[in-house]
Amino acid sequence: MSDTNPISRLTEAECWELLHEQEFGRLAFHLLDEVHIVPLNYAVDHDRRLIFRTSEGSKLLGLAINDDVAFEIDEFTEDWARSVVVRGRARTLEGLEADATDQLPLRPWVDTAKFNVIAIEVDEINGRRFELTRPWLHMRPHEPND
Amino acid sequence: MSDTNPISRLTEAECWELLHEQEFGRLAFHLLDEVHIVPLNYAVDHDRRLIFRTSEGSKLLGLAINDDVAFEIDEFTEDWARSVVVRGRARTLEGLEADATDQLPLRPWVDTAKFNVIAIEVDEINGRRFELTRPWLHMRPHEPND
Repeated sequence: MSDTNPISRLTEAECWELLHEQEFGRLAFHLLDEVHIVPLNYAVDHDRRLIFRTSEGSKLLGLAINDDVAFEIDEFTEDWARSVVVRGRARTLEGLEADATDQLPLRPWVDTAKFNVIAIEVDEINGRRFELTRPWLHMRPHEPND
Repeated sequence: MSDTNPISRLTEAECWELLHEQEFGRLAFHLLDEVHIVPLNYAVDHDRRLIFRTSEGSKLLGLAINDDVAFEIDEFTEDWARSVVVRGRARTLEGLEADATDQLPLRPWVDTAKFNVIAIEVDEINGRRFELTRPWLHMRPHEPND
């Protein structure tokens, strides 16, 4: 595998396809000077933006102060992994714009009240596929002189 | 499920146990004014810090300018999900300190050169377990008057 690059780029269409297939990802956001990350479920709105709901204070506070976010999804098997990373701007939807997202397949995985509808407007989308070196080829008993 | 909280906290011991079980997570870091997120594989060093290797320019550059990072792992089934989030400081290990990490089960999933050994010194560790509302109970045919 030394003469082929084990990492390849996904096309933008492949990235959106993977975003459609999944419904669970991780949001990275600023909270004042700190970077934070939370798992959440999401829906794709018209291959243009991602939608999620939240009731959490610190996430909303962070996004209100700084709307710069990154969002990641991935999947992997024993042989390969794929990851899509989105960067963009988060904003709270209100009124009719929030109501319109009721049409999306945004299923509440956890049964808690989530009053705020957030959209991530996508500025950049990048996906990569990794051919994995099979881990068991590297596994060996511990040798004291390693 | 309305009278029990579907979200519960993991103990710190449970968080470390899950970090030991897995080897793949997502790092959120600052790159100048932006927040970025990348998938990577890692190893746990003495229930105290996480170790990963990298050759990537932007990640290393970002960490050199601002060492504040967050790191997340998760797992889920149809009925529940668990997520562990670490916050801490990243720093590049050099010399003997870097060599010592050769003992860790940090398996290179992808066969590319990765010369830099990074440690995330853990300041905070938080884990949550989510009892999932079964998605299929919410699935229904689209109704035009929704």
